[in-house]
Amino acid sequence: MIPEVIVHPLIRTALEEDIGAGDVTTTAVLTGAEAGTARAVAKADMVLAGIDVFRRTFLLLDPDVRFSMSLEDGREIKRGDILAELSGRLASILTAERTALNFLQRMSGIATTTRWYVQAVAGTHARILDTRKTAPGLRVLDKYAVRIGGGLNHRFALYDGVLIKDNHITAAGGVMPAIQRARQRISHALKIEVEVKNIDEVREALSSGADVVMLDNMTPEAMSEAVRLIGGRVPVEASGNVTLGNVRQIAETGVDFISVGALTHSVTAADISLLVSVRA
Amino acid sequence: MIPEVIVHPLIRTALEEDIGAGDVTTTAVLTGAEAGTARAVAKADMVLAGIDVFRRTFLLLDPDVRFSMSLEDGREIKRGDILAELSGRLASILTAERTALNFLQRMSGIATTTRWYVQAVAGTHARILDTRKTAPGLRVLDKYAVRIGGGLNHRFALYDGVLIKDNHITAAGGVMPAIQRARQRISHALKIEVEVKNIDEVREALSSGADVVMLDNMTPEAMSEAVRLIGGRVPVEASGNVTLGNVRQIAETGVDFISVGALTHSVTAADISLLVSVRA
Amino acid sequence: MIPEVIVHPLIRTALEEDIGAGDVTTTAVLTGAEAGTARAVAKADMVLAGIDVFRRTFLLLDPDVRFSMSLEDGREIKRGDILAELSGRLASILTAERTALNFLQRMSGIATTTRWYVQAVAGTHARILDTRKTAPGLRVLDKYAVRIGGGLNHRFALYDGVLIKDNHITAAGGVMPAIQRARQRISHALKIEVEVKNIDEVREALSSGADVVMLDNMTPEAMSEAVRLIGGRVPVEASGNVTLGNVRQIAETGVDFISVGALTHSVTAADISLLVSVRA
Amino acid sequence: MIPEVIVHPLIRTALEEDIGAGDVTTTAVLTGAEAGTARAVAKADMVLAGIDVFRRTFLLLDPDVRFSMSLEDGREIKRGDILAELSGRLASILTAERTALNFLQRMSGIATTTRWYVQAVAGTHARILDTRKTAPGLRVLDKYAVRIGGGLNHRFALYDGVLIKDNHITAAGGVMPAIQRARQRISHALKIEVEVKNIDEVREALSSGADVVMLDNMTPEAMSEAVRLIGGRVPVEASGNVTLGNVRQIAETGVDFISVGALTHSVTAADISLLVSVRA
Amino acid sequence: MIPEVIVHPLIRTALEEDIGAGDVTTTAVLTGAEAGTARAVAKADMVLAGIDVFRRTFLLLDPDVRFSMSLEDGREIKRGDILAELSGRLASILTAERTALNFLQRMSGIATTTRWYVQAVAGTHARILDTRKTAPGLRVLDKYAVRIGGGLNHRFALYDGVLIKDNHITAAGGVMPAIQRARQRISHALKIEVEVKNIDEVREALSSGADVVMLDNMTPEAMSEAVRLIGGRVPVEASGNVTLGNVRQIAETGVDFISVGALTHSVTAADISLLVSVRA
Amino acid sequence: MIPEVIVHPLIRTALEEDIGAGDVTTTAVLTGAEAGTARAVAKADMVLAGIDVFRRTFLLLDPDVRFSMSLEDGREIKRGDILAELSGRLASILTAERTALNFLQRMSGIATTTRWYVQAVAGTHARILDTRKTAPGLRVLDKYAVRIGGGLNHRFALYDGVLIKDNHITAAGGVMPAIQRARQRISHALKIEVEVKNIDEVREALSSGADVVMLDNMTPEAMSEAVRLIGGRVPVEASGNVTLGNVRQIAETGVDFISVGALTHSVTAADISLLVSVRA
Repeated sequence: MIPEVIVHPLIRTALEEDIGAGDVTTTAVLTGAEAGTARAVAKADMVLAGIDVFRRTFLLLDPDVRFSMSLEDGREIKRGDILAELSGRLASILTAERTALNFLQRMSGIATTTRWYVQAVAGTHARILDTRKTAPGLRVLDKYAVRIGGGLNHRFALYDGVLIKDNHITAAGGVMPAIQRARQRISHALKIEVEVKNIDEVREALSSGADVVMLDNMTPEAMSEAVRLIGGRVPVEASGNVTLGNVRQIAETGVDFISVGALTHSVTAADISLLVSVRA
Repeated sequence: MIPEVIVHPLIRTALEEDIGAGDVTTTAVLTGAEAGTARAVAKADMVLAGIDVFRRTFLLLDPDVRFSMSLEDGREIKRGDILAELSGRLASILTAERTALNFLQRMSGIATTTRWYVQAVAGTHARILDTRKTAPGLRVLDKYAVRIGGGLNHRFALYDGVLIKDNHITAAGGVMPAIQRARQRISHALKIEVEVKNIDEVREALSSGADVVMLDNMTPEAMSEAVRLIGGRVPVEASGNVTLGNVRQIAETGVDFISVGALTHSVTAADISLLVSVRA
Repeated sequence: MIPEVIVHPLIRTALEEDIGAGDVTTTAVLTGAEAGTARAVAKADMVLAGIDVFRRTFLLLDPDVRFSMSLEDGREIKRGDILAELSGRLASILTAERTALNFLQRMSGIATTTRWYVQAVAGTHARILDTRKTAPGLRVLDKYAVRIGGGLNHRFALYDGVLIKDNHITAAGGVMPAIQRARQRISHALKIEVEVKNIDEVREALSSGADVVMLDNMTPEAMSEAVRLIGGRVPVEASGNVTLGNVRQIAETGVDFISVGALTHSVTAADISLLVSVRA
Repeated sequence: MIPEVIVHPLIRTALEEDIGAGDVTTTAVLTGAEAGTARAVAKADMVLAGIDVFRRTFLLLDPDVRFSMSLEDGREIKRGDILAELSGRLASILTAERTALNFLQRMSGIATTTRWYVQAVAGTHARILDTRKTAPGLRVLDKYAVRIGGGLNHRFALYDGVLIKDNHITAAGGVMPAIQRARQRISHALKIEVEVKNIDEVREALSSGADVVMLDNMTPEAMSEAVRLIGGRVPVEASGNVTLGNVRQIAETGVDFISVGALTHSVTAADISLLVSVRA
Repeated sequence: MIPEVIVHPLIRTALEEDIGAGDVTTTAVLTGAEAGTARAVAKADMVLAGIDVFRRTFLLLDPDVRFSMSLEDGREIKRGDILAELSGRLASILTAERTALNFLQRMSGIATTTRWYVQAVAGTHARILDTRKTAPGLRVLDKYAVRIGGGLNHRFALYDGVLIKDNHITAAGGVMPAIQRARQRISHALKIEVEVKNIDEVREALSSGADVVMLDNMTPEAMSEAVRLIGGRVPVEASGNVTLGNVRQIAETGVDFISVGALTHSVTAADISLLVSVRA
Repeated sequence: MIPEVIVHPLIRTALEEDIGAGDVTTTAVLTGAEAGTARAVAKADMVLAGIDVFRRTFLLLDPDVRFSMSLEDGREIKRGDILAELSGRLASILTAERTALNFLQRMSGIATTTRWYVQAVAGTHARILDTRKTAPGLRVLDKYAVRIGGGLNHRFALYDGVLIKDNHITAAGGVMPAIQRARQRISHALKIEVEVKNIDEVREALSSGADVVMLDNMTPEAMSEAVRLIGGRVPVEASGNVTLGNVRQIAETGVDFISVGALTHSVTAADISLLVSVRA
């Protein structure tokens, strides 16, 4: 669960964005006294993620809303399942509805797609990773949803991992000077990962002391060769244009990790509705 | 163009999210003195959107970065086209790269998909609308990208339009009391739009004085009948599970507007790379 | 009631503004252990508005403060009436007092004046509207208070309504091109209101398809003529230098709405005191 | 001049409040390419205050706006005077107009009223003071405008002065224990001001070592007596229901300072218009 | 106690700074279900300060954490004493631990050193003051800790006291014009303190009407002479390079106040550990 | 250099904290028109750090301030050296002075002490590390200053490194389960560091696959034995009560890294003054 101190500002921003000067429809049509119940219902199969953010969105708007049930994150959901049931002032529920669903549908969409990738490589050695290609401002939620879907988080941001890419190597004048310079300037707590494009670069990265090798946009054949060459000395990550169509083939080359940008940069929202009923 | 005062906080938040305690790779591998040029290159066909946010992201990190060219938003781009060219300190460019691309790829992805929908209904009367199903905190960018793609913005948030949905009607005890109550409480500057599910509700909405009728999840046949019934007295919007596969058929029923949630809730990022070269 | 998520940041800012480094008087003079009761008392007749903001100000500073009674917003108050009674740590009550009163006195002042305008046009067709001439940062409270006083809210901000004024028309090269251009670029959810200065402009606005006509700074005679000319086809708003002295005369011209900038730009604070007694 | 670091967040908040999702009218009606000039014109006599905030509002929205002239704060303005002239993109000018005017009209309104009070006591010994009864969040601007009008600022907030009021005295069990306790707990940099209601309390405050005596809601006769009794040993402040009608009489009792809550809690906005012309 | 509305943003910022994208260790090693108890233990003698901030840090992260005991601020602590005992989810406790300790150790460090200074001047007339030389952003906590240690707070910031220093005097063209100009522009609620460097300047300050005299970097002999010259007419403050080694000698010159920058600019953290045990 | 987007909010907060409602002394004593020059002068030997933050503090308050020279961070400074020279409006310089110095003195203090530790271990294999024991909210500056002093940054926060401490091990039921569980849940980009207290735990950590071993509070003899046992297979860090008195002895045990909490939790501010002269 993401700590409230981290997630509350995100919910607050989203509610302010949607409510702003006020919910004119609810204010105009309801008296404010109506009470009732709402059910979040899955309209497709999915992996649930973000139910806590969903819940807190209603509670941040109105602390008197009550949840009589809610399923837990990570659960595989069938179309028609009730994900959560809440009750309270209808004005509050209707005002918070879209914001709460926007979070839940995005997060569950990410978790669902991640699960598909994880299942696609089941039985191989490979683990599915995310990237930094997230919606601006929502990275903590996007990466949480990946974990819920069964993926692992690659580095969170620029501050928590050394990943020397093509451009860094060019700027530094080669793989070896890049790695050597980094080694002098970082602590032992950080690994040095190096992105390579071909077998020659794999050799150079290994001999220069890379802690992890990332194979970028290589063919499955080249990946297999690289895995053999590396021989288990350091972890190997595959990256670049990974899809559900090719992820299994990539996994079977023997790489340890496969990073998938689409998990978070091209999200398909999970289909979820909120159905409200008025209390008799 | 979105005013700087609105867009800067979003860029600032995104840069803080990605940089946080510092870009350890760039700090470790570069000396900080390297200068060079970077080109944003389209790796697929697309409609460009967000070039100004892209540009400001680099400038907010380092005001000395210079753009020698950039295409304008709305332009149809071919794979391989150069979208922008910038130069300056490589450390700055590499640190801002991912954040700038995350904005540009999401926004161009939205504009591109919107353009497809707009083209799909070309020659009909119908206009494509967005919804409030946007990424939390990014609505102003998401909706801007829809406009760039040729769509129109439906209400921005809860504060700028009265849209009486199913649940509001239930809570109010019917279409007529809902509309009447709203009419008393809002100014003349706002229209009252009512969501209906069948022909009977269309009739009730009309006789109760709705300013706009939204046909929710109806079949094309029912939509056609509704359009005939309404007869141009008020604008008609179609909504619910609209896809590129069915949008033309919907448009041909004669509705005035078609709102498409997927434009912003299920974005496919446009494929764009940044290629850096070191200054000789 | 304004959602807590919207109103809390305003109260927080105001408390921080007044407390800053600490309430030196209360810290210096009280031990912190004193408990007691406080009563908010009306020192003049008024319409109460903002009691919830008043209450939350104390609670945000000290969640242990208790309210034994408080009157509801919209109530007509007589001089000497007790508006609210609270008890708890005196240090908290004294520290929050001025901030809480600043909100309550401004909001009740707005509601009171609004009620006077509403009463002045009683029996006519006209409704009283506010404007965007509010205290910077406090618009959501100012406009809420207008509603409590019996007024309607005109558009909240630049984002929720199209109001084509003199300057827009000049820039666009005439009423007709201005309206036509707007019609192409906005959705059906927004009305187009046009500000006019004389009968000729009324005609032009009507023939160009304006949804609402605003008569700006016209004489009562000209307004009457405009109302006759428009003949109920679209709503008519009167605007410009409206005072309690002339609002009735304007209403009797038959306009539908009268907008009054002074409701929020020239507020007279309602006179309210907080009387504290120490618990025996 | 208020430092930019203090005033920018206020302007930013106000612009965000008014622009939010975008200025739909300007976006719909203008192409964005129109350029022109705008003049801020006084529609009544006034003391100008806030011209720098006015200027920065436009510049924060669009750094390319240019001011060809602007009068300085504190200047006495005649109806019809041009206060400032600016030019640039009309879209920017029209979008910032209302926010800029809301600041300028409030601040000039405060300065104008303050000047009237200052002139009313001209020739006496008394100086006009403000209070903490300001619009929540705008105190720094409200108090600046009082200074521009010729008034002095009383304590800014709870943190910068000890003012022992009635309630503090009750809580502490009397004037003497209140002052003694405060003396022990505060540094020599702060004065202790004590609010009194009658001559007996004046005596007690003096003998207990008050540094300043505030006469609260006394009659002019009682004030005169208090001034004689105090005999110049400490400064004397008059407070409570001061109006333009009675301020001279109060000043003539010989008090040193007169604090006027209405300067900031009941502001009458100065009447200022922005007139735009399109560049040929 | 510092109001929650003031201290919460500081704790929130600190937690966000330390947690950011998440506590990877706790997430990776714990299941999240572990519960237990933690004790904060003093590893050296100290004066306790900040226990409320410490407590709120845990509660802001997890409202379900419970404190079974905690000592009060100001208490003299012996090495080995238990300062607080809390229980709850171990994941929460471990995640908040460092942030909570960083506050408590800094604040107790300040209080402890302050107490030493206060004890060093015991029996003399002199009181210990702090300065504005605090950690940026933490002044309210730093100054609170000084009070807990037995010191007095000098002015909090630039807004709450007039302190005319060397540079102001130079800019104004002398002590007398500086004081006279200030007297005209400030209210009676503020004292004018003047920094002087030698006996001649003491005389000039007195004759110009200074309310407080600050002796800056004088020898004890010169201070004694200054104290005699001033003769109790105004308070006297000593300042500049005060250490535990010379503070007694300075106090014995008869000055009223001694300000010590090192109290807050050179803090030695109090040594405190958190010991966790798992619930059986 | 720390990016402006990260450091500006810190400076802004600090300036707001110190200026708040305004610099009453400067406003009261200066006319605002005075111009002059200021020099930052070292009053002791030091390593300079934070000159860019110092410079930006003045510029954020007044963009017209000009720096004619400033030394670079990392430079060894002798008492009496001029660190920077700036000129402009004296009012701006005096208002920003304390805030700018508070940053510079803290950061240079950290860099100076770090340099001493680095020099103390010169010639050994050991590198000096910092910890997370930083001033709340200032970590990015504290850790930057450590780097300038020649130290390395240990993990920045809870998000960028796995450090399994005593309490985690207890909660997980032993070193082996703790490491195994972590290995399953984190990506290959993060190392697992384990804190141990004795030789047995060193053996267990090694056999469980720890990537780094931290020796906590061991005697030098035990550390030497641990280093021999580990034999270069993984990096070794020493931690706990490291002082300038014992750091050399610890380094000579052969450990790779020594982390020193006091670098940032017990800072001694570098002694720096700002001397202002008025322009003739």
